[in-house]
Amino acid sequence: MTNRLLEALSISHPIIQAPMAGGITTAELVSAVSEAGGLGMIGAGYLDAKSTRHQIQEVKARTDKSYGINLFVPSPYTEEKDVIQRAQLSLQLYLEKVSSDVESAFSSYEQTLEIYHKQVNVIIEEQVPVCSFTFGMPSSDVIHSLKQAGIYTIGTATTLSEALAIEAAGMDAVVLQGSEAGGHRGNFLAGVEQSMIGLMALIPQTVDQVNIPVIAAGGIMDQRGVQAAQCLGAQAAQLGTAFLTCKESGANPLHKQAILEGQQEDKTTITRAFSGKAARGIENDFIRNMRKVECELPDFPIQNTLTKPIRSQAAQNNDRDTMSLWCGQNPNLAEPITAKELVHKLVDEE
Amino acid sequence: MTNRLLEALSISHPIIQAPMAGGITTAELVSAVSEAGGLGMIGAGYLDAKSTRHQIQEVKARTDKSYGINLFVPSPYTEEKDVIQRAQLSLQLYLEKVSSDVESAFSSYEQTLEIYHKQVNVIIEEQVPVCSFTFGMPSSDVIHSLKQAGIYTIGTATTLSEALAIEAAGMDAVVLQGSEAGGHRGNFLAGVEQSMIGLMALIPQTVDQVNIPVIAAGGIMDQRGVQAAQCLGAQAAQLGTAFLTCKESGANPLHKQAILEGQQEDKTTITRAFSGKAARGIENDFIRNMRKVECELPDFPIQNTLTKPIRSQAAQNNDRDTMSLWCGQNPNLAEPITAKELVHKLVDEE
Repeated sequence: MTNRLLEALSISHPIIQAPMAGGITTAELVSAVSEAGGLGMIGAGYLDAKSTRHQIQEVKARTDKSYGINLFVPSPYTEEKDVIQRAQLSLQLYLEKVSSDVESAFSSYEQTLEIYHKQVNVIIEEQVPVCSFTFGMPSSDVIHSLKQAGIYTIGTATTLSEALAIEAAGMDAVVLQGSEAGGHRGNFLAGVEQSMIGLMALIPQTVDQVNIPVIAAGGIMDQRGVQAAQCLGAQAAQLGTAFLTCKESGANPLHKQAILEGQQEDKTTITRAFSGKAARGIENDFIRNMRKVECELPDFPIQNTLTKPIRSQAAQNNDRDTMSLWCGQNPNLAEPITAKELVHKLVDEE
Repeated sequence: MTNRLLEALSISHPIIQAPMAGGITTAELVSAVSEAGGLGMIGAGYLDAKSTRHQIQEVKARTDKSYGINLFVPSPYTEEKDVIQRAQLSLQLYLEKVSSDVESAFSSYEQTLEIYHKQVNVIIEEQVPVCSFTFGMPSSDVIHSLKQAGIYTIGTATTLSEALAIEAAGMDAVVLQGSEAGGHRGNFLAGVEQSMIGLMALIPQTVDQVNIPVIAAGGIMDQRGVQAAQCLGAQAAQLGTAFLTCKESGANPLHKQAILEGQQEDKTTITRAFSGKAARGIENDFIRNMRKVECELPDFPIQNTLTKPIRSQAAQNNDRDTMSLWCGQNPNLAEPITAKELVHKLVDEE
């Protein structure tokens, strides 16, 4: 059942480590997952071309196995002075505590697009085996260039329509991101609310209508989840939160701790306060304080740029209540183990 | 794996027909499910004691097999004149079209509680094999009386904490209602947003900490879903939408049609516009029109009483845009077949 995708990805197990951006997917983590027979993935969303190449080369130095990389597809945005000023006012209490020339730091859409295209070129030059995308669909030119270079392309969908669009664009496979998933929502045709479909409903309705392999993502933490996703028709599972707490992950120790500490309840929520794009994370003071102005905040990546110094300072101060603590809906099952141990636990027959 | 629950319920297959209230669970539907080896369930939430007894007797006349019934646990509420007047103003356009003495129709909390206790007595007198509850937990007196009478009790939870509370109260099993589920949310400790957990995340974290059998509900439509729920640790699956479109169901034909007609996309949303309690249904004009005042509407069951004449009139007029069209997140897989055919499709080994 899983042969087609596993063969195409050159991996032994139907396990993909989610390409979490922002320093989590260290070369140690990515290579450890690939060495264990899964697919390690670099989250390159926030990197420039140079750092992207560096990360790829670091992974290559550590493993000969297959691995992948993920890019954010830029969407048009404009810098609206009044929206930014209102957001800065809402963030005033936080911004007062940091020293940073924030305004000069905004990149234009054109600049963002240029970096993205440079990343694509690096990926082709470095012959990365697998390239996945989120926040939208790459242009047909980008898809064509990657496929010409023999690179396996994967899109991210949150609805059946998005999966159909990814298939129609000629991509090789699709990650279905369920409402359970931590981190940013990958919706690009659906609105955020319409994108919140649980995997139990999303996988079967999609595999019935889409012919490319489907990879399930969201709330999967152990072998039960992997097998359930396969029952529903997925050919592999992509896990974020489960790999985030692994020893090799570069996540802030406080972030790992927030996920690992005993919780009887789902403490996650959807917020756009950190980046301007809806994402699931553990609720904290920052999210609560921004709740009432949330819908007026600038779009991604403007809001992300605005909160960057705040988040950096929070990391320095070990201030968990101001950090982004991305997390899926099943933190209870997270463990502080090695990536190799996790991959083995996910696939071992009992 | 499923023996313990199936034995206790005296059924052959791990399939429970969700006790959808409001005329959907006809004696024909309930008995057909039970005759096919699943558990047919009467949705008695909106019934008085007399109708409850009548429904039970109708089912008994049709089958000797095990079956069950579901009650709404009343929560305290008060009739707030100003809130009701504002709601009536918002509903004005709709209310103008109906002739009804709405205000005199409100039941007090005490009256609602009295009906509920009479229903419990009927269930004991009629020796219904299984009684489930939603919208809260029955009191220890009610649980004790039912268990004394040899009736199997099932609670409904949307979070791990709610499942733990149901276990601690001494109930025999728990339905886990995932965010995928159609109809009313059963949350009673969690807020609505916190209750929106996908089954992929909710089932494993709950079965790890709860010892009573767990029944999965939400977005399950076919054998793949039943098997996935079992992989995750559930002992049975409870299906609503899949049984709603069955030939024996008493759902309005327009409701069935809205679910069955080809949809590439999830068209459901969460609304409290119809009843005052959050529920998932297919989005229509009524939901859209009420969206901006939704959070100010009176609580259940006041708002439900207010919209009752509107919904009745809509049914008479075949006006799909004003009816409540409860539906889970996977309508694409619904079929207009018999309950027997559905049960067989759900469990047949292929």
